[in-house]
Amino acid sequence: MSRREVIAAGAVLVAAPFAVGKPNEAHAAPADEAVGEGPFPTRAYGAPNATGPLGPIAIERRALGPADVLLDVLYCGICHSDIHQARDEWSTWNPTKYPCVPGHEVIGRVRAVGKAVTKFRVGDVGGVGCLVDSCGTCESCVTDREQHCTKRATFTYNSPDAQSGGHTSGGYSDTMVVPEHFVIRIPPGADLAAMAPLLCAGITTFSPMQHWKLTAGQRVGVIGLGGLGHMAVKLAVARKADVTVFTTSPGKLDDAKRLGAKEAILSTDAEAMKRLAGSFELLISTVPRAFPMQAFLSVLKTDGTLVNVGAMEALEGVGGIDLVHGRKSLAGSMIGGIAETQEVIDYCVARGIKADVELIGVEDINRAYDRVVKKDVRYRFVIDMASLKGRKES
Amino acid sequence: MSRREVIAAGAVLVAAPFAVGKPNEAHAAPADEAVGEGPFPTRAYGAPNATGPLGPIAIERRALGPADVLLDVLYCGICHSDIHQARDEWSTWNPTKYPCVPGHEVIGRVRAVGKAVTKFRVGDVGGVGCLVDSCGTCESCVTDREQHCTKRATFTYNSPDAQSGGHTSGGYSDTMVVPEHFVIRIPPGADLAAMAPLLCAGITTFSPMQHWKLTAGQRVGVIGLGGLGHMAVKLAVARKADVTVFTTSPGKLDDAKRLGAKEAILSTDAEAMKRLAGSFELLISTVPRAFPMQAFLSVLKTDGTLVNVGAMEALEGVGGIDLVHGRKSLAGSMIGGIAETQEVIDYCVARGIKADVELIGVEDINRAYDRVVKKDVRYRFVIDMASLKGRKES
Repeated sequence: MSRREVIAAGAVLVAAPFAVGKPNEAHAAPADEAVGEGPFPTRAYGAPNATGPLGPIAIERRALGPADVLLDVLYCGICHSDIHQARDEWSTWNPTKYPCVPGHEVIGRVRAVGKAVTKFRVGDVGGVGCLVDSCGTCESCVTDREQHCTKRATFTYNSPDAQSGGHTSGGYSDTMVVPEHFVIRIPPGADLAAMAPLLCAGITTFSPMQHWKLTAGQRVGVIGLGGLGHMAVKLAVARKADVTVFTTSPGKLDDAKRLGAKEAILSTDAEAMKRLAGSFELLISTVPRAFPMQAFLSVLKTDGTLVNVGAMEALEGVGGIDLVHGRKSLAGSMIGGIAETQEVIDYCVARGIKADVELIGVEDINRAYDRVVKKDVRYRFVIDMASLKGRKES
Repeated sequence: MSRREVIAAGAVLVAAPFAVGKPNEAHAAPADEAVGEGPFPTRAYGAPNATGPLGPIAIERRALGPADVLLDVLYCGICHSDIHQARDEWSTWNPTKYPCVPGHEVIGRVRAVGKAVTKFRVGDVGGVGCLVDSCGTCESCVTDREQHCTKRATFTYNSPDAQSGGHTSGGYSDTMVVPEHFVIRIPPGADLAAMAPLLCAGITTFSPMQHWKLTAGQRVGVIGLGGLGHMAVKLAVARKADVTVFTTSPGKLDDAKRLGAKEAILSTDAEAMKRLAGSFELLISTVPRAFPMQAFLSVLKTDGTLVNVGAMEALEGVGGIDLVHGRKSLAGSMIGGIAETQEVIDYCVARGIKADVELIGVEDINRAYDRVVKKDVRYRFVIDMASLKGRKES
């Protein structure tokens, strides 16, 4: 949207005096700084190509439309998807456009709002997950499943951006401009850094529990104990399900129990897998790549469902007979709709559920990527975006 | 069960005077023939090994237990599963025990009943589908999902037979002894030959429509137009769903519409598949072998389900992304429980729905098998078991 269009659309750009006493005030822009009307030159951290390290780059955020919110980014989680995308590991179905600025677990403070915005005031804290736009009119959108918009679901990064004509850039950046519908209200008293991962890891694991109606006492298995997996355990324990963790990391077995799992087993332990045959109503696989699934299908009960939220490539070892016997389902699930994302935030704040995070600066992103791939994080890196201030733009 | 055990169990074996005026009386045993107490020498038609043709063989049916029913088999459908099993094409997960007497779409007349039987009287018509026993106490059994019995689901043929110590033999035979719970009541005025295929092809396609709640006006796709597929079309049309048939046989396109489908397309027609993207609430795949599924997953709507009831081997072309986008499910389904099998019979009789059958004699079975494999049957071979009488046993 050009400056002229913004003016025509009647956007009113408001200076952002930050309220006194809000948490994370250290990250707030000076109260006397004029916001301007945009577009907004923005410092970001991104990948120049599939192999190069991420580094500082300059991007531009569009001028505020009437329904848009301008956020100063405070925190952004690092999701394994960021790595897949930055390194073009999903090239067959979603090739990466460069430069690529990842980040879809974003917590920011509202610095300005468009004229028509009703959900936020300047100074509020907002969250942005994986989705920043959709058509609003298709069957998916009108039923709160915007993530499955059939016309123009726009993801936070690497999506065609109808407004700029380019592609979207994510939360490893100073600012974002996002339609208010896609910004989640974050209670300002919350532990903001630990809220960031709820916007992808949290909603991605919460949504299947809602959709497949996981109830108290049911047995659920969480496959993979990483950023998503550790949230899945916390969220399933919160609803009093009986949680088993399947991991390939012996070092995580104790952790799984600390997080509330009743049982944690190595998925390579054939004896244990056999003992668990026919045990689970629901399995949520958070593993970010394909793996042989037959053994997991065998531990489902009759009418059980294995929901894959991590692997995007061709799935392995799915036999017709494995699903036919026991009327089992293999399903996919992707984040959640906006209403449900608000729900998981409210649910977690009300119960004191937060992600286990390791706070880093932007200069640590490349090292963090390597550690995520090596499964060496417990359980989510979150970038303190204050570390970006003062960095030179490329 | 030995003769002594039968007597100890108090089974009363009743001679079977067939009521006058019942349909298919031609197949009834003479009214003056004493049944005896069993075991029952039985003429059958079976496969001696994986490659030899089926031919007449002698088998024995166990003596009647108190809850058992002795049936004179009138008709038996030929299911593609019979061929897979007779030819040991499922050797990796269900190797065939020989001699193999297939047949699990059985219509018979009750010739004798055990003392405790309440559901049938001598002369009634009963149906036997794919299942002849289960534990009766596991979670699946007590919730009318006997087909998923986790302890000892016993299929009509090629299952370990707890009672004889051998393996079960199916309906290509003169008589069967089956616990009354697993015998379906068939209204005697029904077109009995055309009822036989409902006991597998009918219930197998009806059950997923019930479980996944296919309702009037929803779009359902039927993949494969054979014995199962043609029943799926009729059953979906009966509930006023909007039916599309996907076939690889150009010659079946017109037939699909005659059966009530609104649309019939060649699944090799990439343009048509593209046009149908995101269209279907439910797909039922009746194809008896694995095929690339990606194109079919793409025609599902958000939250749609592809239910595979035909292919038992490793499924092909199931990408994580294909399920994740649109929260789609790939499920399996296997026949139905006994209550639901009764339901589909009653449903079809009430609505005049029957299978399109080609009636053959036992001497035609091998030719029929070859024609089924060549997709040259419209749409189900049914064996008139009267043709077995007088055959020499091997």
